[in-house]
Amino acid sequence: MSEIYATDQEKLAVAIAEARRGADEGGIPIGAALFDGEGRLLGSGHNRRVQDDDASMHAETDAFRNAGRQRSYRNATMVTTLSPCWYCSGLVRQFGIGRLVVGEDRSFFGGQDWVAEHGTELVVLEDEGLIEMMGAFIRDNPEVWNEDIGEDDTAPD
Amino acid sequence: MSEIYATDQEKLAVAIAEARRGADEGGIPIGAALFDGEGRLLGSGHNRRVQDDDASMHAETDAFRNAGRQRSYRNATMVTTLSPCWYCSGLVRQFGIGRLVVGEDRSFFGGQDWVAEHGTELVVLEDEGLIEMMGAFIRDNPEVWNEDIGEDDTAPD
Repeated sequence: MSEIYATDQEKLAVAIAEARRGADEGGIPIGAALFDGEGRLLGSGHNRRVQDDDASMHAETDAFRNAGRQRSYRNATMVTTLSPCWYCSGLVRQFGIGRLVVGEDRSFFGGQDWVAEHGTELVVLEDEGLIEMMGAFIRDNPEVWNEDIGEDDTAPD
Repeated sequence: MSEIYATDQEKLAVAIAEARRGADEGGIPIGAALFDGEGRLLGSGHNRRVQDDDASMHAETDAFRNAGRQRSYRNATMVTTLSPCWYCSGLVRQFGIGRLVVGEDRSFFGGQDWVAEHGTELVVLEDEGLIEMMGAFIRDNPEVWNEDIGEDDTAPD
């Protein structure tokens, strides 16, 4: 019997635990989790750029990967601690993930409105603890943060 | 001294070799490669859904991962045998990959025009051998193909 994560807050708690795990590993503190239509956890993950030198593993892609192969994401919910970047928004759109729960979109604002326009139900929780944690990380680590979102600070003006 | 892949055809040949490797492994025959501004190979890869049960590794994301951490993709070229899906188009947009070379866009048409609208230079080669190979794969393997692009054939009408 798999545990049921009934509410968005319960689902977000799984993503927050992943973000903290990433922070404990010295990484970028973003976590995500994917649930089926009944609220069962399919997979969770966190950003792995720093600890694994893996630029392809954002929180959402790590959760998606850990969920394994699925025939349908129509009834699934992706929960992420931070507004998904275009890469992760593209993931949500391509695979038709039915619902997207965003922990906060103050520290970074990605493609969440675009996926909503293409049929994904969007919920933004604006979790104060996450806003504080992510804000502090970005202030203290601007270089690795810019690298993670492809902000090219090597560019000429 | 790293080899220089000067032309788009030379770059595409690397992606095609990856697609063939994927086919030899029993996987979906899509390959990709990422090059720096001088035409040096940064990383290449292929779709890994079937052979690794990894839904997150499309050809482009596998090539991006194998290229390691980079500070800038402004002068980089991503070459892919098949038009990139929204997931991989989001990757190109988020990381500001400067140039996208598509082997063919007849078997599948993804977000290539969208990334071009956002500043990426787009080249489409319409390689006849690729059109034939991918068309045959899709005809022979509709179920795994639909799974790979998130075409939800479990959906009610």
